[in-house]
Amino acid sequence: MNFPAISRRQFLKTTTVAAAGLPLFAAALADPPRRKIGFALCGLGSLSTQQIAPALQQTQYCRLAGIITGTPAKAARWKAQYDLPDHCIYSYETMDRLADNPDIDVVYVVTPNALHAEHTVKAAKAGKHVLTEKPMEVSVAKCQQMIEACQTANRQLAVGYRLHFEPNTLECARLAREKVFGESKMFEGGFGFVIGDPTQWRLNRALAGGGPLMDVGIYVVQAARFVLGEEPLLVSAVATNTDPEKFRDVEESLVWQMKFPSGVLASGSTTYRIGGMNHFKIFGTRGSFGLDSAFGYNGIHGSPSDGPEIQFPQLNQFAAEMDDFAQGILANRPTKVPGEEGLRDVKIMMAIYESARSGKVVGLS
Amino acid sequence: MNFPAISRRQFLKTTTVAAAGLPLFAAALADPPRRKIGFALCGLGSLSTQQIAPALQQTQYCRLAGIITGTPAKAARWKAQYDLPDHCIYSYETMDRLADNPDIDVVYVVTPNALHAEHTVKAAKAGKHVLTEKPMEVSVAKCQQMIEACQTANRQLAVGYRLHFEPNTLECARLAREKVFGESKMFEGGFGFVIGDPTQWRLNRALAGGGPLMDVGIYVVQAARFVLGEEPLLVSAVATNTDPEKFRDVEESLVWQMKFPSGVLASGSTTYRIGGMNHFKIFGTRGSFGLDSAFGYNGIHGSPSDGPEIQFPQLNQFAAEMDDFAQGILANRPTKVPGEEGLRDVKIMMAIYESARSGKVVGLS
Repeated sequence: MNFPAISRRQFLKTTTVAAAGLPLFAAALADPPRRKIGFALCGLGSLSTQQIAPALQQTQYCRLAGIITGTPAKAARWKAQYDLPDHCIYSYETMDRLADNPDIDVVYVVTPNALHAEHTVKAAKAGKHVLTEKPMEVSVAKCQQMIEACQTANRQLAVGYRLHFEPNTLECARLAREKVFGESKMFEGGFGFVIGDPTQWRLNRALAGGGPLMDVGIYVVQAARFVLGEEPLLVSAVATNTDPEKFRDVEESLVWQMKFPSGVLASGSTTYRIGGMNHFKIFGTRGSFGLDSAFGYNGIHGSPSDGPEIQFPQLNQFAAEMDDFAQGILANRPTKVPGEEGLRDVKIMMAIYESARSGKVVGLS
Repeated sequence: MNFPAISRRQFLKTTTVAAAGLPLFAAALADPPRRKIGFALCGLGSLSTQQIAPALQQTQYCRLAGIITGTPAKAARWKAQYDLPDHCIYSYETMDRLADNPDIDVVYVVTPNALHAEHTVKAAKAGKHVLTEKPMEVSVAKCQQMIEACQTANRQLAVGYRLHFEPNTLECARLAREKVFGESKMFEGGFGFVIGDPTQWRLNRALAGGGPLMDVGIYVVQAARFVLGEEPLLVSAVATNTDPEKFRDVEESLVWQMKFPSGVLASGSTTYRIGGMNHFKIFGTRGSFGLDSAFGYNGIHGSPSDGPEIQFPQLNQFAAEMDDFAQGILANRPTKVPGEEGLRDVKIMMAIYESARSGKVVGLS
């Protein structure tokens, strides 16, 4: 197929990043798509509306092929905006009919955390690949259920770790792997924001599974694991709550520590009370490096203790994540961010909560 | 008395700081010293040699009046360099004779941590005021012994918290107290350096009482308490050791958490394995502020999330600390950094070690 002019410009822009050594875009240069993978967005909240649907327009290998929503008014709005045919619009109750729709290859699950398993299992049973937002689910058992459902259906399961495709984050992983700043010894990171509407699902334990740790602290857990390239042996945590009315169901703020097999000690912080905390730093035997800010959709940047700034061009992380999943499906190669990766984070976060509750260090198997 | 030209320049330089609102130097302008307080340095290691003795030359209210050392070669060298009379040179065994020397008002204890109590008690019994380096001692009981000895002798006891006199640190305490960045919610800080000679006393638990926490982590504990202006309720800690041969007696690195009554959560890091970790930051409801670097003898500076840089002129912190103690003695007012302040840090650090050993949160009374 031919690229429309806008896509070609987009494509050429990404070659700058490819030149910096990112295999994703190098592959894109060599192998333009034969067909676009059809994505159905499951859950049409603000993330789908403001980030994922616009990002789909910037992909090379994907297209918006359907929606799944419990809100008829949203269905009507999206149908009009994206020119969707009626047979590509589903409710959560009619998801089994996805099996009859060859235009849809992937269901992208963007519902509240505690519904990811239900919607993933339905999509897998209908023969669809699944990309689910993080955190993968609210318990280890539900993550395992998702992995099993996709294995049984012989479909791929990916978790929306957009920063695995973000060039500044990848550069930090390279700096750690190649020991550019020596052996990593200490890690410090934090991510928080001021939560608004007190009635939203993020403040409801049954739907969110926890507070800021599940929602944004997970980025700090991920950054430590992804950049250091190893898995924590144990965690220890302390939580706080200065507004018990607003935070009656989930923690307001939490700090935790992780010890890694190499001996690295990590400190993490997360909160729903303040913004401006959005960073990680690794202290090595020959200097320090990291990103500040680190976890947003743009503005990612780092000032190492010496050497050049870390400032690769920003890209649309959701587009990169979806394109990579689509390319994997087209090429029959496994995703870089499989369900097992999401499960590991949930295991760690559950251990962090157990430690905050018990006041004891919790080991990880 | 008249100021020599060099001191007058020094004096005028400090008026810049006085103009920034520091009462220490404002007082200096109003009240030039009638006589200089005589300091005897007890322990002539690198801190005395490279920092404290040169700093004494920059004070307005103090003079080097004697030395106490176990090494005759050091005694000879210092006697020559500082033109000290024989009767002002003591060994640890002859400290009781300090009682007969009216030229010496203060003993500044700069010996290894586990000797501070012994030397403080001897000095107090000889009728001298005591300024002791931090950490105050290696146990709560020994700190209490020091406080009691000085109370019994009716002498002042101060701990060498030089940053209580450092203008950038004082500015951070003001920013927190006046809630310039809103209510403080999270604190992050770390201090480490690469320790050299494996035979030095800092790696010997009997003399040091612990590893980097006692030596430099104490600055992070202090920064949190001093800037936030409150005392932690509980601590939790994890230690690591990747070089058991070198660190056979004390921890190599340690991370800890503190929870404060206001709900602030603090993360601290300390290590003998890497340099370049020398910072603290407070995240408030309207932005963040702190210092990086934060704890050195110079180069202290901070970049808040908005507003002007924190960059008051550097001063000689040891000179400021000694001048303040001397002024207090002359004016018969209590020191700003009494033994009780040192005792609190030791209590907290002992709780941190207990948590690292037990794997449990430790409460503080």
